[in-house]
Amino acid sequence: MTNPDPHLDSCIAEVWELLERIGRETADSPGITRAAWSRNDETAADGVRTFARRHGLQVLNDAYGNVQVLLPGVDPATPCVTTGSHLDSVPHGGNYDGLAGITAGLAVLAASAADPAHRARPFRVVAMRGEESPWFGTAYLGSRLMLGLSTLEEIGELVRSDSGKSLRHHIRHLGYPRTGEAIAPLLDSKLVTSFLELHIEQGPLLEADGIPVGIATAVRGNVRFPEARCIGAYGHSAALPRRFRQDAVLAVAELALGLDEFWKDRIAHGDEDFVFTVGKFSTDAVQHAMTKVAGEVKFSLNVGAAVNTSLDAARSLLFDLVKRIEDDRGVTFELGREVGTPPTPMDGRLIALIEDAARPLGIATRRMPTVGHDAAMFARAGIPCAVLLTRNAHGSHNADEALDREDFGAGVHVLARAMHRLS
Amino acid sequence: MTNPDPHLDSCIAEVWELLERIGRETADSPGITRAAWSRNDETAADGVRTFARRHGLQVLNDAYGNVQVLLPGVDPATPCVTTGSHLDSVPHGGNYDGLAGITAGLAVLAASAADPAHRARPFRVVAMRGEESPWFGTAYLGSRLMLGLSTLEEIGELVRSDSGKSLRHHIRHLGYPRTGEAIAPLLDSKLVTSFLELHIEQGPLLEADGIPVGIATAVRGNVRFPEARCIGAYGHSAALPRRFRQDAVLAVAELALGLDEFWKDRIAHGDEDFVFTVGKFSTDAVQHAMTKVAGEVKFSLNVGAAVNTSLDAARSLLFDLVKRIEDDRGVTFELGREVGTPPTPMDGRLIALIEDAARPLGIATRRMPTVGHDAAMFARAGIPCAVLLTRNAHGSHNADEALDREDFGAGVHVLARAMHRLS
Repeated sequence: MTNPDPHLDSCIAEVWELLERIGRETADSPGITRAAWSRNDETAADGVRTFARRHGLQVLNDAYGNVQVLLPGVDPATPCVTTGSHLDSVPHGGNYDGLAGITAGLAVLAASAADPAHRARPFRVVAMRGEESPWFGTAYLGSRLMLGLSTLEEIGELVRSDSGKSLRHHIRHLGYPRTGEAIAPLLDSKLVTSFLELHIEQGPLLEADGIPVGIATAVRGNVRFPEARCIGAYGHSAALPRRFRQDAVLAVAELALGLDEFWKDRIAHGDEDFVFTVGKFSTDAVQHAMTKVAGEVKFSLNVGAAVNTSLDAARSLLFDLVKRIEDDRGVTFELGREVGTPPTPMDGRLIALIEDAARPLGIATRRMPTVGHDAAMFARAGIPCAVLLTRNAHGSHNADEALDREDFGAGVHVLARAMHRLS
Repeated sequence: MTNPDPHLDSCIAEVWELLERIGRETADSPGITRAAWSRNDETAADGVRTFARRHGLQVLNDAYGNVQVLLPGVDPATPCVTTGSHLDSVPHGGNYDGLAGITAGLAVLAASAADPAHRARPFRVVAMRGEESPWFGTAYLGSRLMLGLSTLEEIGELVRSDSGKSLRHHIRHLGYPRTGEAIAPLLDSKLVTSFLELHIEQGPLLEADGIPVGIATAVRGNVRFPEARCIGAYGHSAALPRRFRQDAVLAVAELALGLDEFWKDRIAHGDEDFVFTVGKFSTDAVQHAMTKVAGEVKFSLNVGAAVNTSLDAARSLLFDLVKRIEDDRGVTFELGREVGTPPTPMDGRLIALIEDAARPLGIATRRMPTVGHDAAMFARAGIPCAVLLTRNAHGSHNADEALDREDFGAGVHVLARAMHRLS
């Protein structure tokens, strides 16, 4: 990395300590656990607020416990370049998924506050709650509330899986909205000129390519069948000739490999965007036997892509395969309810601007699609968005999640340059 | 059917009534249940003994509760043409699997006893216990004991799955060996000149071909892996590119379809003998998720064939596929313990003799491999064996198992002719 900003570097060192300290304070071996709207994500929020105040930054909580941080003297209702990420983690997750993006933003604002030339920049850091879906069965609760995309009337009765208590209860239990202090405004496309989120990569592409920073082209959308079934007929494993079989195992195996072939073909044509997973595949434990042809399989299907045409092509292939396999093998597929979200493209101008910011720093970047982040909610609110991904050797949502301090630093430098160019 | 034997026909009508009555007395909706060495298979044994005595036949129990029936005045130590099958059923099975073969033999002996020309024929009917494997986890217990292939010292401590009590306990609980009565001798290749078993077909081939009687060419052997595993690695379903995946579901799917392709190829070359089943296939219910690449699959593999070369070819292909898929997909297969039995060819001379017996009766037959029957134990004891299969529309080991009275009659006529020619 060339041309470092020494002042920013000292702020990076400080937020790195903050990051590690919050990790220790929310440890839950293996890994860390910060449930959404819990004692532990409040510990993280407290760390963020204390750090911000110590650096002379403004701190505001919104009515739901999301935190907004601004440079001193900047009106909270000013349109700002906004950065940040989420406070919560999955159970026994890693320390960096979410918190890295918040502390990255704090470093940028702390460095700006210390520099008279930058002290009044329209910068905002947001620390959001409830991004991870295990807690309330659905994702992005904090950003949805913060952006006005959902109201507490709509989602307040969702129940947290570990406590059995409602979102409304947990928000109040933490003391939000706080009486006697200014409440941060709802954010919308007028108050957020652009949103840049730094996040660890959740796959191994950057590690494999030896590149510290990725730039997301889109948040992948998906087409999902959580509870699909294939109904065949049980039969004697030795007495039943092949032409009489209605074998649910072979039918679902053929469906899965048909979609895998499609994927291989996409890759052969240079498309690295498509993904496909059968995460669940089970014969019926009550009825199955080594000596019986399988009469039923329950399975899940999960197709992802950053562009709708890929999702549509996969869905179309899926229905063709289902029909052909039903005809060939005498089985019936019941795919069940289809769920999913459309792909969310990131802002092309922001992507180019981030690449331009990285180049003079000598930091290599690559474009790649990514998975769901709070940025997708900002995009839904009509705000131009980008996601900077930092290298991570071990995937996310596990205790081995990794973030090299050097890579974090590289990401923060790119983020800072991009934010300054945007302001 | 031409040239019927009217006397045999009246005996067939009588045993059909016996068969249906035992079915009613051992009903266990859906279907019937006659556990091995239980009140219910004893009910069937009582029916057999009562019928035999009423027709002037000799009845002897062996030390284990297997029943032997002989024509009057025939020394139990005489070498005999022997027929019969088993008394027990699977839980909620059909009435004909086993009992049809015993009652068929009773009809032949009752008709012979009524005819002065045949009254002293060296014919024996055996009614055996414990052929079905669900009760003690392994099959052919009664025939193994009756033929001296296993001793009670070796297998007496096997535990019955429903009662938790031992085989030794259950035999004694039914009062065997009976004090104060002659005990039937152990059978061996000196006392059994040949063994002919009538049994319902357990697949739909005869039904499909419109043929009432099949003649088994062999009892299929098998190569089995009851507890195989494939170990991959769990990963993020959207973030993990295909080349980094170690997907256990796709790996086992590919293995299963590889063997299915082998099977299709055998059939294309006219080989109807090979069978292959993955009856169990399950991701880990604790760890699997729609949004995770599957890191583990447990499955069973069951390959069957009537000739060893087919089993060897399949085993060889299996190991090749395992190696190739491990290399391609970065997974590890742990096939676990291999179990199985070699194929048991039936006696070629007996097969031809049965065909010759059927032809003048105008009864169509076809040769076909079959699944495990007590006959396999007689073959293991060095006795020439044959199995006559009767048409059955609905497979076996279920309540819908079928036996048409006409087809049963056709089978008994062929059996009777073959036994007379052999004696």
